[in-house]
Amino acid sequence: MSDHQLPLTDYQVVCLAGGVGGAKLADGLAQIMPPSQLTIIVNTGDDFQHLGLTICPDLDTVMYTLAGAANLETGWGRAGESWQAMGAVAQLGGPDWFRLGDLDLGTHLVRTHLLHKGQSLTAVTRHLCLHFAIQPTILPMSDQAAPTLVESHGRPLPFQTWFVRERWQPPVSRVILPEDVKATHAAGLALEAADIVVIAPSNPFVSIDPILNVYPIRAMLEDLPQVVVAVSPIVGGQAIKGPAAKMMQEMGLEVSATAVAQHYGDLLDLFVYDRQDEGQFAAAEVTAVCLDTVMTDAASRRRLAQEVLAAAVQFIN
Amino acid sequence: MSDHQLPLTDYQVVCLAGGVGGAKLADGLAQIMPPSQLTIIVNTGDDFQHLGLTICPDLDTVMYTLAGAANLETGWGRAGESWQAMGAVAQLGGPDWFRLGDLDLGTHLVRTHLLHKGQSLTAVTRHLCLHFAIQPTILPMSDQAAPTLVESHGRPLPFQTWFVRERWQPPVSRVILPEDVKATHAAGLALEAADIVVIAPSNPFVSIDPILNVYPIRAMLEDLPQVVVAVSPIVGGQAIKGPAAKMMQEMGLEVSATAVAQHYGDLLDLFVYDRQDEGQFAAAEVTAVCLDTVMTDAASRRRLAQEVLAAAVQFIN
Repeated sequence: MSDHQLPLTDYQVVCLAGGVGGAKLADGLAQIMPPSQLTIIVNTGDDFQHLGLTICPDLDTVMYTLAGAANLETGWGRAGESWQAMGAVAQLGGPDWFRLGDLDLGTHLVRTHLLHKGQSLTAVTRHLCLHFAIQPTILPMSDQAAPTLVESHGRPLPFQTWFVRERWQPPVSRVILPEDVKATHAAGLALEAADIVVIAPSNPFVSIDPILNVYPIRAMLEDLPQVVVAVSPIVGGQAIKGPAAKMMQEMGLEVSATAVAQHYGDLLDLFVYDRQDEGQFAAAEVTAVCLDTVMTDAASRRRLAQEVLAAAVQFIN
Repeated sequence: MSDHQLPLTDYQVVCLAGGVGGAKLADGLAQIMPPSQLTIIVNTGDDFQHLGLTICPDLDTVMYTLAGAANLETGWGRAGESWQAMGAVAQLGGPDWFRLGDLDLGTHLVRTHLLHKGQSLTAVTRHLCLHFAIQPTILPMSDQAAPTLVESHGRPLPFQTWFVRERWQPPVSRVILPEDVKATHAAGLALEAADIVVIAPSNPFVSIDPILNVYPIRAMLEDLPQVVVAVSPIVGGQAIKGPAAKMMQEMGLEVSATAVAQHYGDLLDLFVYDRQDEGQFAAAEVTAVCLDTVMTDAASRRRLAQEVLAAAVQFIN
């Protein structure tokens, strides 16, 4: 792998991201890239309507992380959060299984307000990023609703019902993604201009596949000459956070970085797996590099972003 | 005026109420009446959609007051309130002119949630009152939207735009009430069963008239044998709180208890004005009594409620 400093201003980078793991790598990229060269396309498959509000958990996690406003302990929501409104909701017999902090509610209220005024989710996200002083471009994958469903015991569950309300305990037989959802014009333009597309270490099935499912994102990655590099969310046979490992087991897959690489298959030019899996990784059909992928602080996010890009630029011809 | 204790269990009382003044007298009635004998029909003409939520300011003021949860300093909202969500809304460039506290937001979130599930505003209000442990019946005047408009400089303004955003400063030429709004079945039944209807000392033009405008409430008060008694919101030529006096001046009315009595006219069996207006009151066509009407604490609310009912029962035949 190359050791030299990248001339990063030469490249346009798009990062496909879900929630926590995606937000961390996006933050690493934001630390090292000129803002005008970085676009983060975020999963909106787990967005939902709740208590009258439009809630976009992955967009919020990415925004809060890049704004330095994320709650690092919970991995979701805002730092310095309070829970007065949710306490009142519970007192009044309302649904309190999806924990909305008071500060976080501010985001949902403004988003819902602007959507009701007729703005697209892309425009609303631009507005919120402006006020959070976030410089890279954050885009929803689509301005259309694109709800991910999780099939459990033959029954389709709305994503947040399964993920939060049921604490991802019901076993998953498959993920059901909507048909006929279109990417935004802005997301299409960013992908077309990209030299490198980084698939963040988010859940492949419920964070990344929903993005790839949005027309024509998968086709653009297959057909256009960008370098596509994915970082494994499975390290040492476990997910860093969340249900990816449990889902793989339930869907009859091996729980390994190898299986993740095979899941993405031909889409990839390069796969990044963790040093803990050195000697275990066995997807011969994919070019792979072994890096320290576990991001525990700002420095490790930055370092991983740097090393992933350094590996990817080798493939630009 | 009678001095004896009322056998209050003999009477069914309905109170028509707007916000602050209405809530205080409703609270006085609630202190002395058996809960099953008291119904409060509340103005919903100043309800509005804001930040994606359905907000019913007068219903909330009456609920919070009867629940002992009202903010006594501001006259609106909940006691012990915090402002985290609103701070976030402001930070994110959202509209913050209508101050929604965190606890108060809990009410709007639960109401909006239940309305989205298809419940009527009457059912939602029953749900909220149950959870606030409020025993008398609180009813919205209608389950339909019935927005009050205020005409200023020839332009109709939505009520809250005028009242809160513009701090009721634009001069009012007239109040525009919607046509074809129907009372709820529950409100109709309560009025039909009422022995006494108390028109609270709320703003006659933007709190009480919107209730009377809802079909067939005015007709029921005119045609049925209930005793109708109104308490003047104008004392010593001023409104206790809010824009009533300013509006009367702008609409070319004398700012006096007399003018309020004349405004209600034939609807009334009895009018209550304050001792400060003794010797000034001059509406000879209306039977009137002079009482201490200014409610500064729980005891004065209870005393006024008691004295108003004692005066009204004289008219039951």
